[in-house]
Amino acid sequence: MKALVTGGAGLVGNALCRKLLEQGAEVLCVDNLSLGTLRHIEEFKDRAAFKFENWDVSRPGWHEKLKGRRFDLLAHLAANSDISLGRERPEMDEERTFATTFEVLQAAKALRVANFLFSSTSAVYGADPVMPTPELAPRLHPVSIYGAGKLASEAYISAFVENYGLRAWVYRFGNVVGRRLTHGAIFDFVARLRKNPAELVVLGDGRQSKTYIDVEDCVGGMLHAFERSPAGKTHAERFQLFNLSTTGTTTVREIAEEAVAVVAGGKSAIRYGDSPIGWVGDVPKTSLDVSKISALGWAPKLDSTAAVAASIRDYAEWSR
Amino acid sequence: MKALVTGGAGLVGNALCRKLLEQGAEVLCVDNLSLGTLRHIEEFKDRAAFKFENWDVSRPGWHEKLKGRRFDLLAHLAANSDISLGRERPEMDEERTFATTFEVLQAAKALRVANFLFSSTSAVYGADPVMPTPELAPRLHPVSIYGAGKLASEAYISAFVENYGLRAWVYRFGNVVGRRLTHGAIFDFVARLRKNPAELVVLGDGRQSKTYIDVEDCVGGMLHAFERSPAGKTHAERFQLFNLSTTGTTTVREIAEEAVAVVAGGKSAIRYGDSPIGWVGDVPKTSLDVSKISALGWAPKLDSTAAVAASIRDYAEWSR
Repeated sequence: MKALVTGGAGLVGNALCRKLLEQGAEVLCVDNLSLGTLRHIEEFKDRAAFKFENWDVSRPGWHEKLKGRRFDLLAHLAANSDISLGRERPEMDEERTFATTFEVLQAAKALRVANFLFSSTSAVYGADPVMPTPELAPRLHPVSIYGAGKLASEAYISAFVENYGLRAWVYRFGNVVGRRLTHGAIFDFVARLRKNPAELVVLGDGRQSKTYIDVEDCVGGMLHAFERSPAGKTHAERFQLFNLSTTGTTTVREIAEEAVAVVAGGKSAIRYGDSPIGWVGDVPKTSLDVSKISALGWAPKLDSTAAVAASIRDYAEWSR
Repeated sequence: MKALVTGGAGLVGNALCRKLLEQGAEVLCVDNLSLGTLRHIEEFKDRAAFKFENWDVSRPGWHEKLKGRRFDLLAHLAANSDISLGRERPEMDEERTFATTFEVLQAAKALRVANFLFSSTSAVYGADPVMPTPELAPRLHPVSIYGAGKLASEAYISAFVENYGLRAWVYRFGNVVGRRLTHGAIFDFVARLRKNPAELVVLGDGRQSKTYIDVEDCVGGMLHAFERSPAGKTHAERFQLFNLSTTGTTTVREIAEEAVAVVAGGKSAIRYGDSPIGWVGDVPKTSLDVSKISALGWAPKLDSTAAVAASIRDYAEWSR
């Protein structure tokens, strides 16, 4: 199998490249290193089956150098996954989260890639959906620029499936955590505690409760659903949506306390804000209905709180 | 009231500009004349309250010349509304249907426009939704590139409402018809019958059944919902979605027969294809649940078939 992975130097990209290589695939990893880093792919550099290109996939025609190459699978993970940064610079977020998808779809069309995997997000559901939220929730009104970029991406994937013959697997992730974080609460807490072990300032009241998934479980789930989905001809069969997370949730307070325990020996004072959200566009509660992917026989190894604990421990070590 | 109307030289734009002028508004109409034409706005050229600029609103920073100007209302209607053309040139459709929206939202943010009106489409529902389709349908999987661009637009409008303080009214139109058509079945049938009155070739089997709304009813409904929506603070109150059409539907066969009657004195042979759809991405049946806008006291003057008949008669005269 030949695979093309965009955003392959990010958190999920690193784990997906490793898993694909383990399965014997040839992997071309493309990343512009805006959030991903070379250190994330260093472990693959002596593997003949692995190639890396520092390309910006938001540029029209970025794929022209690949003309005539054949890929069985294209996993599009490139995005600005830093939600609060997206609010400050919506044009940057739109370029990295949406325009990348459109231009990668154009690549899939030009290269006639049959199978398109996409990392979407629970942020497409916006605030106040039914919880746990099913894939066919009646309200898709994102409140973050990032969530908008992902829903916009899904919309074009749906239309490209109908018009240009590819099949797509769209995964709406909970918060993905693991060793190679590039942003997010754990990433921030570890950095702040290193700077000031005496005190940890938390945005919001810490009562936000979200679902977290370990990155290994996440890429395992992606490939599980890809391999197990039966072939089909209708649009609904060729455009497969999956919520992908654990069933549990973890509060920001639990994350803060665990980070303090691991990084600062439990000795920091934790100071919370007053707001029920961390920033504008933050969705304070997420809980995903994962019965669709579960019905394909998939289950995560770690629950939400165990995934968070492992990520804090592993990321603190990795980033030391 | 000062209003900025993008796509103001199109079918809906023409009617909206006229209605706003009738209500005493000052109107700045912006259009790049890709589908709209100067003839559509000729009737306003002596009105002091009307100004026209030939600008392409998909370009970042297009609004810089408006710096310091205040608008009470921004109606964003600019798009490539020719669905089958969008399939042939997805990059053109993405630029005109999606990128225009993103850059017009950036304008609304920069100019601090409080009220944002947007022409969306029933095409966001894709194929096979529940019918009549309510605004909170569980499936938003567009099958046309055009529908994708509109859903992508809605996603960013939703996020801009949350992040940058505007309120939005998003109208999912049925097929809008009237005198100043720029594309679509009636437009095509009239052109073909003028070229060859002996025979009318119809794409698809003619059994497609869709909901049509007269453009005067359409802009009346837009302003009705805008004026009657109560103020609110929650995202759901500030991001208002409305299906906007008639309750009835009309088949392509009925349109073809009416066009033959009006343009060719009933004498053309009509030849249908075999396909249940007119082109890839065509949604063969649409029927919208309009109970939300009806509850605000709005009703169209013309039903679907009367709107079609009036459009054929008026457009045939207008385009003679």
